[in-house]
Amino acid sequence: MAKLLLKNATVLLEDGSVKESNILIDNDTIESIGNIDENCQCDKILDCTNKLAIPGFVNTHTHAAMTLLRSYADDMQLMDWLENKIWPVEAKMKSDDIYWGSMLAIAEMIKTGTTTFADMYSEMDRVGDAVTETGIRGVLSRGMIGVAPNGQQALQENIELYKNYHNAADGRITVMFGPHAPYTCPPDFLRQVAGEAQKVGAEIHIHLSETIGEVENCMKQYNMSPIALMEETGIFDCGVLAAHSVHVSEKDIAIMKKYNVRVAHNPGSNMKLASGIAPIPAMLKAGLCVGLGTDGTSSNNNLDMLEEVNLVTLLHKVNTLDPLVVPALTGVKMATEYGAKTVGLGNIVGKIAIGYKADITLFNMNHIQWCPKHDIVSLLAYSAKSSHVDTVVVNGKILLEHGRLTTIDEERVLYEASNRAMNLVK
Amino acid sequence: MAKLLLKNATVLLEDGSVKESNILIDNDTIESIGNIDENCQCDKILDCTNKLAIPGFVNTHTHAAMTLLRSYADDMQLMDWLENKIWPVEAKMKSDDIYWGSMLAIAEMIKTGTTTFADMYSEMDRVGDAVTETGIRGVLSRGMIGVAPNGQQALQENIELYKNYHNAADGRITVMFGPHAPYTCPPDFLRQVAGEAQKVGAEIHIHLSETIGEVENCMKQYNMSPIALMEETGIFDCGVLAAHSVHVSEKDIAIMKKYNVRVAHNPGSNMKLASGIAPIPAMLKAGLCVGLGTDGTSSNNNLDMLEEVNLVTLLHKVNTLDPLVVPALTGVKMATEYGAKTVGLGNIVGKIAIGYKADITLFNMNHIQWCPKHDIVSLLAYSAKSSHVDTVVVNGKILLEHGRLTTIDEERVLYEASNRAMNLVK
Repeated sequence: MAKLLLKNATVLLEDGSVKESNILIDNDTIESIGNIDENCQCDKILDCTNKLAIPGFVNTHTHAAMTLLRSYADDMQLMDWLENKIWPVEAKMKSDDIYWGSMLAIAEMIKTGTTTFADMYSEMDRVGDAVTETGIRGVLSRGMIGVAPNGQQALQENIELYKNYHNAADGRITVMFGPHAPYTCPPDFLRQVAGEAQKVGAEIHIHLSETIGEVENCMKQYNMSPIALMEETGIFDCGVLAAHSVHVSEKDIAIMKKYNVRVAHNPGSNMKLASGIAPIPAMLKAGLCVGLGTDGTSSNNNLDMLEEVNLVTLLHKVNTLDPLVVPALTGVKMATEYGAKTVGLGNIVGKIAIGYKADITLFNMNHIQWCPKHDIVSLLAYSAKSSHVDTVVVNGKILLEHGRLTTIDEERVLYEASNRAMNLVK
Repeated sequence: MAKLLLKNATVLLEDGSVKESNILIDNDTIESIGNIDENCQCDKILDCTNKLAIPGFVNTHTHAAMTLLRSYADDMQLMDWLENKIWPVEAKMKSDDIYWGSMLAIAEMIKTGTTTFADMYSEMDRVGDAVTETGIRGVLSRGMIGVAPNGQQALQENIELYKNYHNAADGRITVMFGPHAPYTCPPDFLRQVAGEAQKVGAEIHIHLSETIGEVENCMKQYNMSPIALMEETGIFDCGVLAAHSVHVSEKDIAIMKKYNVRVAHNPGSNMKLASGIAPIPAMLKAGLCVGLGTDGTSSNNNLDMLEEVNLVTLLHKVNTLDPLVVPALTGVKMATEYGAKTVGLGNIVGKIAIGYKADITLFNMNHIQWCPKHDIVSLLAYSAKSSHVDTVVVNGKILLEHGRLTTIDEERVLYEASNRAMNLVK
């Protein structure tokens, strides 16, 4: 599609203001915002009256294929959950399970307004296929467990993934290296990963300081925090997307700032797994870039970024007993502009601005939750539902039109995912 | 309608189990659950294949008419918010504003699966009218500020409200007395309210121990906690629905248990206003009855009970660092069975059981968030969205059918509410 016009939209601009406007998209890029040139020849015009256009949500941390395990094991202690439920089933997953689990996740993400997701799992070429086919944007990393027998093989797969998929699908796919965590990847392995990543200029996606236990064990074993240990291994020299970072000290935050480590904050997952509450207001104050993520559906249990916006705005208010922290616009930015920066795409997505890729989510404001309209941003963060997402554009292409997926056979995905999920837990 | 059959539903039963079944409703009451009598002559049959039937949600604490102020004032300090934003606008509200604000709230509540709400506000006869017309169930109380010039008048209005509306609308309306809070109602006023309530056998709906400041001031002024003060005034002898109860000690909980005080827990509001985190696991352990509420939309900002289920299951896990507290079924029960007990209707609603009033919410499980179906209750609490509510029955009458309100002209409500809201803040 050469030219797409979003006509009469209510547009959330970078400065937080909201104005009635038109958005003209040329191929994959936002060409102009404002009055329509009457001579403009558009290939498609979408009437966006009473629709709010925001930058598409960026889910900065998830494990898409795990969606096959949604509701399989909840309300359990972490190690009991992993050892007796999650890992045994994951060990049975086949390549096609990864594909259909990812398709299920992507279908949900597009329908709830997410245009980019950062994923860490195995068989990532199949996730890459799903991203390629569906038209969403993906930041993919091969999850590597350094202490596992297949640690070296996983690293080799991440190297191959980078070679074959980085900048693939019209640039919609980028690839990072995915060492799982300090407690599953010894320092030598991390040094090796950092070396391989630097060879090709790749960044790192890693779980850091998710639980108190992880930090305590790291202190015992290495006499330093996971954050300090990462600095020592060279991981932070690569550019890092750090998932969770719940238990970080002021000193840790200073190290993270020094290396511009970006944080994927997952309030829903941290709450459900009782991991703790990350010091997000302190991180923001220190100038860290913080995006939002859902984590996998085994610990959330959906991929709803607007829910995370709501959670991040509420959780830190009650945790600090300060109703002014993480106001509505900050929550929305963490899910869009800051999220884009967090996954390394801040120069091309995360804003509705001229020259940016056209990754746009449109909410239908003809719902009760948007009435009355005293403040649109407040309505978005505190009242609206992801089910109000009407239309989603990624890279200039419409992936959801009036609630209907255009690139995914939803019925088939539900059928395949459901059958495969039931077979896995038999 | 004499006989309504919900055919082939997936039914959430009192013990937490879920089974495929039929629900036969005779007039306003659940007559049978199970196999259909082939000779059954039904006036209407709803095919409920792949629909989950749960007891309708009970919103144990809200201020419906305030929905006109949704998104009007957020991200503010409590007193700044009240004094400079909320109170000045409330002072301008006319009787018709109360009516249309309540209609807006009721429309949202029905569409998101709520079948009963406990309300506290002024001009409650207009809320009573809205309840009567729409078919929802309401537990109404006149909010009384004892220190205000109109304190005695408000009490008189509550007495009148009881006289005119208690057990009205086929029993769908019950009335409580609504002294606002210990910090706005001096002990003498509370004694007077308790006396009037006891004369007619009414219960009390009151805000208790919402903020640290409230408790500290009460300790200073009376040398006892708000809970202990209530015992002293005789309020607790009436049967009490206590909203919030965030800052309560073990001793307070013991007093509450002694009088069977039921708690309306409002996690969303408590988080957004940074009031604090109520010790819900301790209350449940002590055997207190705890229901869920949304509070008003000025401090939430919607009336979505499923969102509160999600919040209550997540918030207390992270607050106690224990992933086992408030599991999925407990969260759901707090929004249904326990909620019904909390508002004094435990004998007639809150369960899908023979002899109970037919207040039933049906979720359409043909949505991605319900796939795969390893555990239905877990899906409901952790993944589903209120937008999946398909059909709602109250007192045997269908108020929402396949997403369409049957007793409310939604377009007119949005129009009236929106106009009136904008005029109020001019």
